Amino acid sequence: MTDHRQAALDYASQHQTEFLNDMAALVAIPSISTDPEAQSDVRRAAEWIAARLESLGMEKVAVMPTAGHPVVYGEWLGAPGKPTVLVYGHYDVQPVDPIELWQSPPFEATVRGENVYGRGTSDMKAQDVAVFSALESIVQTGKLPVNVKFLLEGEEEIGSPSLDQFIIDHKDLLKADAALNPDAGMIGMQYPTITYGLRGLAAFEVRVYGPSSDLHSGMFGGVVHNPAVALAELIAGMHNANGDVLLPGFYDDVRPLSAEERAEFARLPMDAEHFMEMTGVPMLWGEAEYTPLERVGARPTLEINGLLSGFTGQGTKTVLPAQAMAKITCRLVPDQDPEKIYRSLQSYLEQNAPKTIRWELINMHGGPASISDRSSAAVQAMSSALETVWGSKPLFRREGGSIPVVAQMQSILGIESVLTGFGLPDDNLHAPNEKQHLPTWYKGIDALIHFFFNL
Amino acid sequence: MTDHRQAALDYASQHQTEFLNDMAALVAIPSISTDPEAQSDVRRAAEWIAARLESLGMEKVAVMPTAGHPVVYGEWLGAPGKPTVLVYGHYDVQPVDPIELWQSPPFEATVRGENVYGRGTSDMKAQDVAVFSALESIVQTGKLPVNVKFLLEGEEEIGSPSLDQFIIDHKDLLKADAALNPDAGMIGMQYPTITYGLRGLAAFEVRVYGPSSDLHSGMFGGVVHNPAVALAELIAGMHNANGDVLLPGFYDDVRPLSAEERAEFARLPMDAEHFMEMTGVPMLWGEAEYTPLERVGARPTLEINGLLSGFTGQGTKTVLPAQAMAKITCRLVPDQDPEKIYRSLQSYLEQNAPKTIRWELINMHGGPASISDRSSAAVQAMSSALETVWGSKPLFRREGGSIPVVAQMQSILGIESVLTGFGLPDDNLHAPNEKQHLPTWYKGIDALIHFFFNL
Repeated sequence: MTDHRQAALDYASQHQTEFLNDMAALVAIPSISTDPEAQSDVRRAAEWIAARLESLGMEKVAVMPTAGHPVVYGEWLGAPGKPTVLVYGHYDVQPVDPIELWQSPPFEATVRGENVYGRGTSDMKAQDVAVFSALESIVQTGKLPVNVKFLLEGEEEIGSPSLDQFIIDHKDLLKADAALNPDAGMIGMQYPTITYGLRGLAAFEVRVYGPSSDLHSGMFGGVVHNPAVALAELIAGMHNANGDVLLPGFYDDVRPLSAEERAEFARLPMDAEHFMEMTGVPMLWGEAEYTPLERVGARPTLEINGLLSGFTGQGTKTVLPAQAMAKITCRLVPDQDPEKIYRSLQSYLEQNAPKTIRWELINMHGGPASISDRSSAAVQAMSSALETVWGSKPLFRREGGSIPVVAQMQSILGIESVLTGFGLPDDNLHAPNEKQHLPTWYKGIDALIHFFFNL
Repeated sequence: MTDHRQAALDYASQHQTEFLNDMAALVAIPSISTDPEAQSDVRRAAEWIAARLESLGMEKVAVMPTAGHPVVYGEWLGAPGKPTVLVYGHYDVQPVDPIELWQSPPFEATVRGENVYGRGTSDMKAQDVAVFSALESIVQTGKLPVNVKFLLEGEEEIGSPSLDQFIIDHKDLLKADAALNPDAGMIGMQYPTITYGLRGLAAFEVRVYGPSSDLHSGMFGGVVHNPAVALAELIAGMHNANGDVLLPGFYDDVRPLSAEERAEFARLPMDAEHFMEMTGVPMLWGEAEYTPLERVGARPTLEINGLLSGFTGQGTKTVLPAQAMAKITCRLVPDQDPEKIYRSLQSYLEQNAPKTIRWELINMHGGPASISDRSSAAVQAMSSALETVWGSKPLFRREGGSIPVVAQMQSILGIESVLTGFGLPDDNLHAPNEKQHLPTWYKGIDALIHFFFNL
C-alpha cells in the first residue's frame, strides 16, 4: 500500500465526526425538488455543494442553470495521462409526508444507535458526502491520483427532467472515461454490492371526471357513474390476479432474463422470507413464474402511488364526487421505452374507460432502464476496493430502482457507470424515518478512497 | 278565507327582508356536525334556535342533551281539541370543502340574482326559518289555530346517531298527531312536491393495509400487493357493468316497485335528459331495467364518497403506499336493514379480499328507508296548502335522500310525517355554492301558513 493511500485512510478515520457534521449540514437544507415552495431551499443546497467542491480544490465550480433546478459542476484535471472519473450525485430529496410518523424532525440529522436519521441521508446526501469525505482525505494528505469531474443534479427525485438536455448541451465538458454513481445501495451490511442493472421509470397521473360538481349521493346516486368507482374499475383492470400488467403491449419490449442471470439472482441472499420481513406484508404478491428478487430487479411493474377523490376527512359526507385522481408509476426494464408505455396506458384507457365519464392522462416524466458493462476498468477498481474494505467480493445485482442518468451517460457520453453506494435495504428511502447506517458509511468512505487509488 | 289567515299572509309578504336576515343569521353559524372542531358552533346554532322558539311564544323551550349534539325542544299547546303537529328540523350542516370552489364565503348568506347562497341554506336552515317565519306571521296577527311541538336536531348530516334514543327517552313529550318535516325538496320550482318515500342510509369506511410503512416502489414494486390497487380491485368488484351492486344478499329485502308506483314515477317530469342536465355527465349510468327516476327514488345504491392513499400532492412520489382508504355509503330502500347491509359488505370483503393485504371495515351509522301514508289528514292539509299557493296539485314522489327520523317517528311515536320543503334539485346540497331560491322560499312560507290553518 502506498504511503499516500494509507495516509488518506488514516485521515478519514480521524475525521469521522467532521464528516458526519458535514452530512448533517447538507441534510438540514430541505431540498424537496417536487415542492414548488422549496425552490429556494433546493438552490441553497446547490450552493452548499458548490462551496464544498471549492473546498476540495475543484476548479470551474459552477451552479449551472437548467430548465428546472440547477446542476452543480466542478473539475480537477491535474493528473494528465490518468483516467477521468465523472462523479454523479443528486442533492434533492423526497417529500417528508406523512410528517407525523417521523420520530425526529426530518431535516435535523439525528443519531440514534448506529444510525443517523433524516430525509435525504441514505438517498443520497450521505453518499454525496462520502465522496467529498474520501476526496478530502486524499487531497489533504497528497495529490489526487486521477482526474475528477462532478455533476450533481437537483431533480433526481422528480425523474431528472432537465438532465438529458444538460448532458447533451455539455457533452465536451462532461467527457470522461467512466462515471461513479453512488446512488445504488447494498443488499445487506455484510454484502458490498455493485449494481449493474437498473429499472427505468414512467410516471403518470390519471384523472377521471364525472358530474360537473360534487353531487348529493341521495339525489343522484344510481344514475351517475361515480368517478371514484370508475377509476377503481380502471385500476382494477390494470393487473390480473397473478400480478401481470394488462396494458396492451406492456411486455412487448421486455428483454427476457437469461439462464445465466437467473442463476446469479438465485445466488443472492434475498428470498421470499427476506421480502416478507422487510415489508411486513402478510403474503407476497406478483408474477409467480419469477422469484421475488427477479420481480424487483428484472421485471416491469405498475404501481399506484396515490389516490384521491371526494371527502377524506373524519366522519361521513354523503357526496358523489365530481372527480377522482390516481398517480401511477411504472418501473421499466430493458428494452422498454417510457414513451411507448405512455401510449400503452393511453390505449388501455381509450379501450376501457366507459362513456359515462371523461378522463385525462398526464405524462409526467420517464427514463429507460439500463444494464452496465461488468468488466470495465472502473467496475474492477470498485470491486477490488469493496473487497479490500469488507473482506469479501462484492455481489453484482440488477436493482429495482431507477437512475435515469445511467442510461443517459451510456447513450449520450458513451461511458459506463460504476453503481454502488452504502445505503441498506431498510433505510426507509422515500418514507418516514429515512436513515444511514454509520459504520457502513465510514467503511464506504474507505472504499471510495481505495477506488480512486485503484483506478 | 278567514281574516286571520289573510292577516298572516299579509304579515309574511311585508316581512320578507326580516325573514331573509333571520335566515342569514342562522347560516352565519358554521354548525358542521361531522367536524370535531365545530362543536361549539353546533351548540351555538342550537342556542340560536332555542331563542327563536322563545320569540315565537313557544313554552318549555330547552336545549336538551344527547350522547352527541343537543336537540332543541319547544311547544305551544294552547289549542285544546285541535291536532298537535310535531315540527322536525335540523340545524347542522355539511362540511364546506372543497372551499376553493365557493363563489362567496359559505357562511355569509349572499344574494345573487333570485338565490341566496351559503352552506345550509337549502339543507335546511332556510326550511327551518320558513316554519319560524310562518308561525311568526300567524302569532303576530292572532292565535295559533293548532298545537305545535318542535324537535330540532344537530346530527342529521352525520346520520342522526343520537336521535333514535332521544325519541325513545321522550316518547310522551313528543306525542303528536302528525309530524311536519320540511327537509324534502321540490321536483322543480313549478312543481310543489310531497315526498312519501325516502331511501335509508348505511355508511362505512374500508381500510386496506399492506406493508408496515410506505415503501420505495423501485425496491419493492413487484413483490408487494399495492394497497391502493387492492382497494381498487375490491371496489371494482362491488358493481357489475349494469350498475347492479354485487354484495352478497344486497337486494334480498328490497321491496319490489308495484306497477302503480312505476306508473306514478312515469308521470313525473324528470327524464334522462333532466338528469344529464342536472349533473353534466356525458352519459347516465345504472340499472338499465329501471328509469333514472326509479333508480334514484326506489332502488338501493352503493357509492364511494371518498378515496385516499399515498402521495396526492403536486408532482410525483415513487412510493408504494402502506394503506388505502375508501368511504362508502349505501342508499337503502324498504325493507333493507342497515345492519344487514353492513354484514353483506363484511361478507363481500371476507370472500374477496386477497391474503396479500389486511383490511378493516368500520360501520359508521345508518337508518332504514321509509314510506309514508299519503291519505293522512296532515298530508291532505299540506296538499291543499301547496295547491292554493302554486295553483296546481302537488306531485307525490319517492326520493333518493335519507331522513332517518321519518322511520323513527313511524316506529317509535306511531305518527306519519308530511314531507315537503322548498329546495330545488339544483341547490347544490352537500356541494359548493349551496343555495336557496328566494321566490320559491317566500311561496313556501305562505304554504306553511295555509298548512297550519288547514290542519
